[in-house]
Amino acid sequence: FLHGPYPATHFGPKACVLSNPTSVMHIQDPASQRLTWSKPPLNVLVIRKIRDETLLEPFKELCRFLVEEKHLMVYVEKKVVDDGSLMRDDSFSAFRNQLCTFREGYDDISDRIDLIICLGGDGTLLYASSLFQGSVPPVMAFHLGSLGFLTPFKFESFKTEVDKVFEGNAAIILRSRLKVKVVKGMFQRNEQLFSTQENGIAPHNHINNEAGKITLQLQVLNEVVVDRGPSSYLSNVDLYLDGRLITSVLGDGVIVSTPTGSTAYAAAAGASMIHPNVPAIMVTPICPHSLSFRPIMVPAGVELMITLSPDARNTAWVSFDGRKRQEIQHGDSIKITTSCFPVPSICCHDLVYDWFDSLAQCLHWNIRKKQTRLTDANNGTENKGE
Amino acid sequence: FLHGPYPATHFGPKACVLSNPTSVMHIQDPASQRLTWSKPPLNVLVIRKIRDETLLEPFKELCRFLVEEKHLMVYVEKKVVDDGSLMRDDSFSAFRNQLCTFREGYDDISDRIDLIICLGGDGTLLYASSLFQGSVPPVMAFHLGSLGFLTPFKFESFKTEVDKVFEGNAAIILRSRLKVKVVKGMFQRNEQLFSTQENGIAPHNHINNEAGKITLQLQVLNEVVVDRGPSSYLSNVDLYLDGRLITSVLGDGVIVSTPTGSTAYAAAAGASMIHPNVPAIMVTPICPHSLSFRPIMVPAGVELMITLSPDARNTAWVSFDGRKRQEIQHGDSIKITTSCFPVPSICCHDLVYDWFDSLAQCLHWNIRKKQTRLTDANNGTENKGE
Amino acid sequence: FLHGPYPATHFGPKACVLSNPTSVMHIQDPASQRLTWSKPPLNVLVIRKIRDETLLEPFKELCRFLVEEKHLMVYVEKKVVDDGSLMRDDSFSAFRNQLCTFREGYDDISDRIDLIICLGGDGTLLYASSLFQGSVPPVMAFHLGSLGFLTPFKFESFKTEVDKVFEGNAAIILRSRLKVKVVKGMFQRNEQLFSTQENGIAPHNHINNEAGKITLQLQVLNEVVVDRGPSSYLSNVDLYLDGRLITSVLGDGVIVSTPTGSTAYAAAAGASMIHPNVPAIMVTPICPHSLSFRPIMVPAGVELMITLSPDARNTAWVSFDGRKRQEIQHGDSIKITTSCFPVPSICCHDLVYDWFDSLAQCLHWNIRKKQTRLTDANNGTENKGE
Amino acid sequence: FLHGPYPATHFGPKACVLSNPTSVMHIQDPASQRLTWSKPPLNVLVIRKIRDETLLEPFKELCRFLVEEKHLMVYVEKKVVDDGSLMRDDSFSAFRNQLCTFREGYDDISDRIDLIICLGGDGTLLYASSLFQGSVPPVMAFHLGSLGFLTPFKFESFKTEVDKVFEGNAAIILRSRLKVKVVKGMFQRNEQLFSTQENGIAPHNHINNEAGKITLQLQVLNEVVVDRGPSSYLSNVDLYLDGRLITSVLGDGVIVSTPTGSTAYAAAAGASMIHPNVPAIMVTPICPHSLSFRPIMVPAGVELMITLSPDARNTAWVSFDGRKRQEIQHGDSIKITTSCFPVPSICCHDLVYDWFDSLAQCLHWNIRKKQTRLTDANNGTENKGE
Repeated sequence: FLHGPYPATHFGPKACVLSNPTSVMHIQDPASQRLTWSKPPLNVLVIRKIRDETLLEPFKELCRFLVEEKHLMVYVEKKVVDDGSLMRDDSFSAFRNQLCTFREGYDDISDRIDLIICLGGDGTLLYASSLFQGSVPPVMAFHLGSLGFLTPFKFESFKTEVDKVFEGNAAIILRSRLKVKVVKGMFQRNEQLFSTQENGIAPHNHINNEAGKITLQLQVLNEVVVDRGPSSYLSNVDLYLDGRLITSVLGDGVIVSTPTGSTAYAAAAGASMIHPNVPAIMVTPICPHSLSFRPIMVPAGVELMITLSPDARNTAWVSFDGRKRQEIQHGDSIKITTSCFPVPSICCHDLVYDWFDSLAQCLHWNIRKKQTRLTDANNGTENKGE
Repeated sequence: FLHGPYPATHFGPKACVLSNPTSVMHIQDPASQRLTWSKPPLNVLVIRKIRDETLLEPFKELCRFLVEEKHLMVYVEKKVVDDGSLMRDDSFSAFRNQLCTFREGYDDISDRIDLIICLGGDGTLLYASSLFQGSVPPVMAFHLGSLGFLTPFKFESFKTEVDKVFEGNAAIILRSRLKVKVVKGMFQRNEQLFSTQENGIAPHNHINNEAGKITLQLQVLNEVVVDRGPSSYLSNVDLYLDGRLITSVLGDGVIVSTPTGSTAYAAAAGASMIHPNVPAIMVTPICPHSLSFRPIMVPAGVELMITLSPDARNTAWVSFDGRKRQEIQHGDSIKITTSCFPVPSICCHDLVYDWFDSLAQCLHWNIRKKQTRLTDANNGTENKGE
Repeated sequence: FLHGPYPATHFGPKACVLSNPTSVMHIQDPASQRLTWSKPPLNVLVIRKIRDETLLEPFKELCRFLVEEKHLMVYVEKKVVDDGSLMRDDSFSAFRNQLCTFREGYDDISDRIDLIICLGGDGTLLYASSLFQGSVPPVMAFHLGSLGFLTPFKFESFKTEVDKVFEGNAAIILRSRLKVKVVKGMFQRNEQLFSTQENGIAPHNHINNEAGKITLQLQVLNEVVVDRGPSSYLSNVDLYLDGRLITSVLGDGVIVSTPTGSTAYAAAAGASMIHPNVPAIMVTPICPHSLSFRPIMVPAGVELMITLSPDARNTAWVSFDGRKRQEIQHGDSIKITTSCFPVPSICCHDLVYDWFDSLAQCLHWNIRKKQTRLTDANNGTENKGE
Repeated sequence: FLHGPYPATHFGPKACVLSNPTSVMHIQDPASQRLTWSKPPLNVLVIRKIRDETLLEPFKELCRFLVEEKHLMVYVEKKVVDDGSLMRDDSFSAFRNQLCTFREGYDDISDRIDLIICLGGDGTLLYASSLFQGSVPPVMAFHLGSLGFLTPFKFESFKTEVDKVFEGNAAIILRSRLKVKVVKGMFQRNEQLFSTQENGIAPHNHINNEAGKITLQLQVLNEVVVDRGPSSYLSNVDLYLDGRLITSVLGDGVIVSTPTGSTAYAAAAGASMIHPNVPAIMVTPICPHSLSFRPIMVPAGVELMITLSPDARNTAWVSFDGRKRQEIQHGDSIKITTSCFPVPSICCHDLVYDWFDSLAQCLHWNIRKKQTRLTDANNGTENKGE
C-alpha cells in the first residue's frame, strides 16, 4: 500500500488501540487507482493557454480529432475561439460552429463535462480546477514545449494517448485540493484565554467567530497565499490549527499548499518537495523575519485558519492559485481544509515516475556537473571543491 | 479524519475509480487512537539515560513507586543498576534485589514487557525502540530538564500521570519506524538497461541482487544515515525507489527518515518538519554538491534502496538511529521501507499540541523578538529591518 | 588591519604585480577609526520613532538634557513635536519654543547638523540616513526596549554616553550606503550582441541607455528592493554588473543590499550575514523560481543595474529602505553602486562586539536548547536527535 | 576601485575620522592587477591530476611544448611520470629525462618555480597551493572536460594562451589564503571570567594558551573544516574572534573558508557565494543543531580560533583543503587568519567574468526552464506554478 503497511494495533502482551469502528477509514490504495467509465464519455472540455500562438495548430488539430474522428461534443471557452488569429483563420471558421462555447462566470458547464483536455502549461490545469468547484472530471494534460508538473503528456502522439484513455484503465492520481472559506468580520481573539507561556502554543484559545459571513468559498489545487500585497511593510498574521493559535507569521506572508503546490510557489519559498500522494498540508512562511521559521507539514485532516494578528499594523492580501486577490482586514479569517473533491489527473507513466521526471525537468532537481570517473581510488589532488 | 476527508471517487458524470476491493485499506483515524489494556500491565521496563547524575533520585523514586505502590515487576538494564553512584547508595542496595535486571544482547525481554517508562532525553526512546525489533509496548517518556520531541511528560507529577495511563484511554501516537535491511555483495547496476536521457530518471533499470545476503535487519525510529564516514572526500550513492534509480547523491551523505526523525538530524540538514502522523518517508541530502538538491517526501509505502554509485571513489558508512555504524562497499545495498511495528508513544496533551509545543521548546521554531505595538498605523520611520 | 594583511606582490622568483600608482588606494584601517571634532558640536538633530507612546518621556528627558544642561541647539521634525500627546503635555509646552523644528521635504537642514541622536528602532536610523543625501553627521542611536542592529546604546545611562561622545575619540563604524539612480525610458537590450551560450553569461552585451532621464537619485543604508508589487505574478528582471548581463531573476524579486542590510530583509530572504566592515554588495533573490539561485556577494566597487527582462509580462516595483515605492516599466533601469557617503555610526562597545551582540539579540542567531553536560563520555542512549 | 570609492572622512560640519597615519593601508585596486615578469620565466612546474587517463595526451603535449618549443625547465612530481601508462609509453620514455622530477615532502622546489601550470580539476590548484607555503608563483590552470572554479582556461588553445602569459600583462586575481596553526594542549577557557548574559557574547573572555605548542602551520586556499570525523555524535566546538568567544557550534561541524572556498564545501553547507576579491572570511556551520545558525562573513583581518567546547563529549577532526586530517582534543586550538601569501591565479577573461561563468557552469547557479514568451500581457490561465 502506498500509505505504508497496516501498523500493528497490539503493543506488547497487553496493550492495544481501543477499537472504534466509527473512526475507521476505508481508503483505496492510491497506487492501484485506475480510471474507468460507467458510460462512454461524450462531452469533452478543451482548455488552451491563450495568447500563445504556438498552440494554435495543436489546438485545431486536437479539436478536429475529437469532433471528426471521435464524434464527441467539444466545449471551448468563448474567448478561446474568439481569439484574433483563430477568427482570421478560414480553415477554422467552418469548424467553429461544431464547437460548444461557454463564458466563464455566465455558463455553468460543471455538471456536463466527462473529460477535460488541457493544452499548454500548468496554468491550464489550475484554470480547469477553478471551473469545477465540486466534482472534477478526469483531466488529461499535454505540454507543448517542456514538461510541466501538471502536464505530463507529449502532444506528438496525442491520438494514441487519447484513445488509450477512452479505453479506460488509465493510471490516475487524485491530486488533493484545499477548500478555502473567507469569513468577513467578527473574528476576535479571546485574549483573556490566551496562554501566557513564553514559547509554547496556547492550549485553550477559544475563538468566537460564529457570527462571521462567508464571502468566498473555493477550491485550490496549488495554494492559498497570504502576503503583504502592495505594502512595503511586513505582514503579520496568526495561524490557527483546529482552533488553536499555533504561531504568528511576521514576514512577506505565508503559503498554505497542497502537496501538488509544494513544487510551485512553496518550493521558491524554501519548502521541501512532497509527493502528491502524501496526505498532508504544507505551511511555508515567505521571507520570515525569524531565522528559525522552517516550513512544516501537517496531516491532511486538520483545519487551518489565518487572521491578521491583533497587533498587525497593515492589512494583508490573499490569493487562490494566483487568482481572486483580495484584501484581508482585522476581523476577517481564512479557513482552510482538505477538500473531498480532488483533481483526478491522468498519469503519463505512473504516479512515481511522472513526479520524479517533472522534478528533474521542471526544477532541475539535483542537476550537477558530472564527475569523471577515476581509474583508481583516492589521490592527493582530489578535493571536495573539485 | 486526520488523513483528510474521503476523496470523491466519481469524477464528472461518467468517470470513476475502478473499484478494487483487494486494494482497500481500513485504517483507524490516528486522531482517535487511544490506548487500552486487555489485562492490567504487570511488567514495566524502566529506561534511564546513564551517566547523568541528576537522574539518580528521580529514577529511584520512580522504581520505588512502581514496585512498592503499584506492585509491578520492574525491569532495568543491568548496567543501569550497576552504575557507580547507585552501587554506593545504601538506601538503594536493599531495594536492588526487587528489580529484574537484563543485559542488552544477552537477555531477550521483548515479549515480556507491558509498558516502557523512559527517563531522560530523546535518546532513551531511541534506545527503547532498538530493544523491540517487533511489536513495541506503549512508551511513556518523562523529561527532567527540558522538553524533548519524544519525552513529553514532566516528571514532577509522575505518579498521577502513571496512574492515568494505567486506567487506560490515554491518547497515543503511533510513530512509524523504518525497516532497514543491509544486503552484502551481489548488487549490480545493469548498465545496459540504464536510460540515456540526460535529466530524466531511468524508467526500466532492472536490478539484480537476488543473490545478496542480508547481514543486518533492524527498525529505526528516527533515521538511517549514509555518510562519508572518516573520509574527507564526498560520498557518492545512488538512490532507488521501488527498484528505479531516482537520483545520485554526491555530498556528505543522505538521510532517510521517518516524520519523527524530521525534527532530528534531517532538520539540521535543512528539511522541512513533518508531523509524525503524516504517512511519509523523507529523503534529505547532507551538504549536497548540487545547489538544487532539495529534500523530498515520498509516500510511506514505497521501498527505497541505497547503494554506492558505480563511479564512487570511496566507500560510505551507514548508521541507524546513530547506532551500529558500519562501512558500505561496492555491491552492498541498504533497503528501507515503512515498518508495520510503530512505536506507540503516549501523548501528554494530544498529538497536535505535543508536537507544536516541542517545535517551540526544542527547536525554537519561529522564535523572534516581539515587536512593540504601535498606537497607530504606518509611520515614516518604520522599516522591514526594524 | 581589518581588511587583512598586505598581500605579497611578488610571486616566486620572477613574477610580480605590475605596479600602477594611479590605482593605489589609501584606506584607514576601519578597526582604528575614531571620531573627533574639529569644533565643539552645537546643532543636534533628535529623531524619534513616532506614535510610540513609550518614547515620550525619554524624548522629553533627552531634549531637556541637550538644551538645558548641554546648551545645544536641538532640531526636531515638526510632526514629532506636533504629536497629540506632546501637544497636551503642559510641562512640555513651555519648552517647545526652545527647539528648532523643520518639515521633511521643505526645510533642508542637511548642512547644519553636527550630530544625530536617534531614539527608537532601526527605522529611525534609516530615516536619518534619508535626510542626509550627501555627508552624514555622526549618529548615536538609543534603543528603548530591545537592542537593534543600528541602535546599540541603552537609554538608561544616556547622559554619560552622550558626554563621552562629545569628548571625542568614540569608536565609529562607517556603514556603507548604496547610491541608486532610477533612469526612466530609453534602456534597450541590444539583443543581436547577446551571447548564445546556453549557461554562460553574455560577454559583450552592450547597453544603449545614454538618452535616459534620471528621475530619482538617492542613498540607501539597508537595501534596494525590486519586487512584483501588488501583482500575483512573478517578476522577471535582468541583473547587469559593470554593463554585462549576469543573470535574470524570476521570482518575487531581488534585494541589493549593503552589509548593514544583510541582517534585515536579505536575511529573511535567506542570505548569509555579513559584517558591516566588509566592502561588498549583496544580491539576494526573493523566492526565486530556480532552486539553485543562491545569494551572492560582489566587491563594493562594481556597478549593478536592474531592468525588466525583455520578456517580462508584468512591471516590477522598486523601493529604497522601504520608502518611495514606485513602478518600473520596460525601458527603465535602476543603477546601484557604493556611495562615498557612509553613515558614521557610533559604536557602543566596538565594531565586532556590537555586531555579534545584535546578531544574538535581534536574530536569535544560533540560539539553542542547552545540552546538559554528562559526567562521562559517550553512552549508548545518546543520539543526534536528543 | 573594486573595494568601492573612498568613503568621506568628514561627517557634517564638525566631525571627522581621527587621522592616524600608522593605520593607513595602501592597496592596489584588485581590478587593475596585472602580472609582469622581472626576468623571463625559466622553471615551470606542471601539475596534473593523476589516475585520469584522459589527461595523458594533453600532459605529454604540454610538456613537449614547454621543453621543445619554449626551452623551459619543466618540473613534474615523480609519481606523475612514474605513472603506469606513462612508463609503458615508448614515445615518452626518451623525453622523460628532460624533465626535472621531485618528490613531495623530500625535495623542496618552492623557491625555484617561476610559473605553475595545472592540468585537470580544481584539486590540482589546491595541491599546488599546498606545495608553496610562502610566496606562490603565478598559476595558470587548464580544465579538460568542464570548467572549474579554479581552472578557467580551455586546453584547446593552450599554446596561444601560454604565449600570452609569457608576454606579461595578464589579468590576475590574488586569491587570499588562510594561515592556520594547530596548537596542542594548554588551552583553557577561563570560566570565571565568562559572561553570564543569556544570549549575548562574552565581552571579556580571557584566554590562557601561551604555553601551547604549534604542531602544524599551513596555508589553505579553500577552507579549514572541523567536523565530527568517524563519530556518529554531534561535534561541539567553540568559536572565538580576536580572543572573544563568539558562539558554540553544535552539529556536524564548521567550515572556515576564504571567498574562493565559498563556492566549494561551504556552498554545499548552505553559504552564500562570495566573489574572491571581497576581503572576508566565511564561517559556515555544517548541519547545525540550531535552526537559526546562518553562515556569517567577517572582515579578512580578524583572527578566529576554534577549540573543543568544555562540555564536548567527543573529540573533533580538522582537515585543511581536504588534506592532513587529524584529531582535535580538549586543550587543542586551531588559529586561523588571512595569510599574506595569496595564490596569484591568472584569469582567462577577467576577474568578474571568470567568476560568473564558473558559477553558471560549475554550480548551475540560477539555471531554470526558460519560460516561453507570450505575445501579450497577463492572461487568466497563467500562474506562479507554471
